[in-house]
Amino acid sequence: MKAGSRIANAAFAKKLCTAEDAAAMIGNGDNVGMSGFTGAGYPKAVPTALAERITASANTGNPIRIGMWTGASTAPELDGALAAVDGIELRLPYQSDPVSRAKINAGHMEYIDVHLSHVGQMVWQNFLGHLDVALVEVAGITPDGDLIPSSSVGNNKTWLDLADRVILEVNSWQSQDLTGMHDIYYGTALPPNRVPIPLVAPGDRIGVPYLRCPADKVIAVVQTHAPDRNTPFKAPDATSQRIADHVMDFFGAEVSLGRIPSTLLPLQSGVGNVPNAVLADLQHGPFDHLTAYTEVIQDGMLALIDSGKLDVVSATAFSLSSDAVERFNSNARDYRDKIVLRPQEISNHPEVVRRLGVIAMNSMIEADIYGNVNSTHLMGSQIMNGIGGSGDFARNGYLSIFITPSTAKDGAISAIVPMVSHVDHTEHDVDVIVTEQGLADLRGLSPKQRAQRIIDRCAHPDFRPVLQDYLDRAMQSGYGRHTPHVLDEALSWHTRYLTTGTMRA
Amino acid sequence: MKAGSRIANAAFAKKLCTAEDAAAMIGNGDNVGMSGFTGAGYPKAVPTALAERITASANTGNPIRIGMWTGASTAPELDGALAAVDGIELRLPYQSDPVSRAKINAGHMEYIDVHLSHVGQMVWQNFLGHLDVALVEVAGITPDGDLIPSSSVGNNKTWLDLADRVILEVNSWQSQDLTGMHDIYYGTALPPNRVPIPLVAPGDRIGVPYLRCPADKVIAVVQTHAPDRNTPFKAPDATSQRIADHVMDFFGAEVSLGRIPSTLLPLQSGVGNVPNAVLADLQHGPFDHLTAYTEVIQDGMLALIDSGKLDVVSATAFSLSSDAVERFNSNARDYRDKIVLRPQEISNHPEVVRRLGVIAMNSMIEADIYGNVNSTHLMGSQIMNGIGGSGDFARNGYLSIFITPSTAKDGAISAIVPMVSHVDHTEHDVDVIVTEQGLADLRGLSPKQRAQRIIDRCAHPDFRPVLQDYLDRAMQSGYGRHTPHVLDEALSWHTRYLTTGTMRA
Repeated sequence: MKAGSRIANAAFAKKLCTAEDAAAMIGNGDNVGMSGFTGAGYPKAVPTALAERITASANTGNPIRIGMWTGASTAPELDGALAAVDGIELRLPYQSDPVSRAKINAGHMEYIDVHLSHVGQMVWQNFLGHLDVALVEVAGITPDGDLIPSSSVGNNKTWLDLADRVILEVNSWQSQDLTGMHDIYYGTALPPNRVPIPLVAPGDRIGVPYLRCPADKVIAVVQTHAPDRNTPFKAPDATSQRIADHVMDFFGAEVSLGRIPSTLLPLQSGVGNVPNAVLADLQHGPFDHLTAYTEVIQDGMLALIDSGKLDVVSATAFSLSSDAVERFNSNARDYRDKIVLRPQEISNHPEVVRRLGVIAMNSMIEADIYGNVNSTHLMGSQIMNGIGGSGDFARNGYLSIFITPSTAKDGAISAIVPMVSHVDHTEHDVDVIVTEQGLADLRGLSPKQRAQRIIDRCAHPDFRPVLQDYLDRAMQSGYGRHTPHVLDEALSWHTRYLTTGTMRA
Repeated sequence: MKAGSRIANAAFAKKLCTAEDAAAMIGNGDNVGMSGFTGAGYPKAVPTALAERITASANTGNPIRIGMWTGASTAPELDGALAAVDGIELRLPYQSDPVSRAKINAGHMEYIDVHLSHVGQMVWQNFLGHLDVALVEVAGITPDGDLIPSSSVGNNKTWLDLADRVILEVNSWQSQDLTGMHDIYYGTALPPNRVPIPLVAPGDRIGVPYLRCPADKVIAVVQTHAPDRNTPFKAPDATSQRIADHVMDFFGAEVSLGRIPSTLLPLQSGVGNVPNAVLADLQHGPFDHLTAYTEVIQDGMLALIDSGKLDVVSATAFSLSSDAVERFNSNARDYRDKIVLRPQEISNHPEVVRRLGVIAMNSMIEADIYGNVNSTHLMGSQIMNGIGGSGDFARNGYLSIFITPSTAKDGAISAIVPMVSHVDHTEHDVDVIVTEQGLADLRGLSPKQRAQRIIDRCAHPDFRPVLQDYLDRAMQSGYGRHTPHVLDEALSWHTRYLTTGTMRA
């Protein structure tokens, strides 16, 4: 089919222009709400053109900097390109781009790291300033002027609803069979006018399959034909495999104890190789008729559908490898009744996450012996990516599981430390910690009981005696045995790493 | 009326016995779910008798220790008495008793500090072990055998539903006009069987006015006539007054900006004198038809009802002064259509808190320059009280405000520090920080912007230059300018206090 046929409505077709023309409609100081979530469904052409415009303008002494709001992470040609030319004044709510990260950590770019379920609400509340432009990729425009969402939904509804001006990219690379896979809920409101979200199972459809946007708000429509950023899939290594096996054993025990059904409960799985290893294990495990209520559909989730283990997955975006994308695009129609893509305010909504009883599985950077978790910062100061949706799921879910290899940097860093250098998930929100060494079920334990269990089960043997020594001395240090700390040593592992390149003494 | 007439059902009346007889039915190792929330509605007689039994038994070489679960804090004759005789093996989910606190910090008692909205769910999930006994105060028993709840609801529904054996205390001191004030929602379930909670306004009644319990589970009924622990009300001091004024100015500005309606949004107010000062200010402020969706009804809330400013308050318990209790008990019937008392799993429920758009105002111990908040620990190790419901409201509410005087201990302690010694509310969950010095609105700010604002607006002038110096040097220290820290100094204010008795250099 012709790329042009993706724009079946005349009022939108009239706005067709080049990426360069569209980029020229974005001005200095604009807040721009862009599509994009984990490298899926982000605009492919206008950001690059905008980066060029920014460079040209800077050369004439007229710097252009924008506020850039997205769903979550995007891709090098968006986050990377705009950060590289210093075009971003403020970035939110999540990024994972190396260039952006470097700019943020150098102090050249402001970054607000926000719970992904909170973003829509914050913008509706006008807490973050005015939204000037929405720049959103869609898979097509229907004859009626409805927008067929792309491979992620993210905050697109909010951007389209609230922006003064809208720029659309219509990407003919996206499968047309995405049509009907989305569920856009238009029932949200600001308090005091909110009502219950009528969703009681992961596969429920409570909205419409299209995004809405009045044509007269649209200032430009740009045609593209470009793939999403692909995330290479790595087969689980031995460490990830051991972590996954511990999780599977735990699920088995919980089912035996009658605490969760044999279909488990809706799964949420963070992005990464370790969560993917858990999904791979589930493919061969004893649990059937699984469901998922999660942010992102990774390769492992697609494989679970293919194997018949997973009945339905609700998410807000894909994050697939090239192989998996090909498989998906060739069979999108078959996946349509097993996949629902929602706005991130619904995929991560506290109300729904609590109601469904989601089992949250997220990666972390480090945990301390009391079960506080750091998901975002290296050595307290440097941002890595961001909290993403992990807080939405960990706080309000049924079971909150955090996973990591017990060491990093060839054993120089212990992922279990006396005190984390930054807290994203407090002791109150962490039920289970898993490393390749073992699994620590922290439910029903006091802080010092938790500490002993985490040291015994999760710490790497090289670090276990030093952690035990810390705990023992903290118990004797005298200022309180509820959460015993030796404060002037609590962060010494991190400072030692900064000084010597290793946490080892 | 005779005390006896409070027990109008014969099957229950048959179980009448003494507190000593009832206490004898609680054995070593039992997990006991007790009523009680902020010193209201706790059992008055059996715990004291149990403490005596524990002492006698210990003297014969047979120690008795129980797991003690409540709604929240209770009173000296419960928490204090049982802790004093070392009768509590494990305490949850909240305490504020000096004897308990000392035992926990000495390492003689295990304590799990839990989000109050999570407790019911955790017990239903059987995460905490089996519930052997429920020990619940009620205001009466109807001819049909329904239980008239007392001055708090807490987790009583869960205890009565799940315990093997039930002991009731019928307290004739409680007003009979409490009848009809409660709303006990029996629609909760375990996933995957949960449905939306049909509550869309603070005053909605979605349940029944009584607690249910089959008479054949009841092993003892004890009559009491004893007042709740009263919380003396202190008129706001100058510091509290200044904090309250800052909050009022902020509300006024938010209303002017159209971000919240002039009726505000449902208020949640933590316990304490500073929150009470805010409530007192509201009494004379420009906002009418206020509502509250909160945990606890303090004097200030009652005064807001009396003054006609507050239309309705939903809570799970009272926490009144003697004067206010008298006023309430004499006029309980008149308050009945303005007060709804609910189980704490509903008063603090993430789904409802998010839907209603609650404005959360909670006290704290300290905040750091990046907006992380410590609500629970002194110098990292010692527990003070617990997180209570602050996390339920701060995470899922519309606006999350934390308040504290800028110094403590006659100026030896700064409530604004480089890094908090314990995190209960992360940077992601804290919108506004207020001290008597000023108010820092942190929304839409990156970490280092937040730091500058908190130092400028909230820190005490004596500590401001030192904090500024810390931030400036952290910006230069080089390991990352997203959340710049000098890690080996980050907790030095706390260690200095432990060594010298002051955070001042």
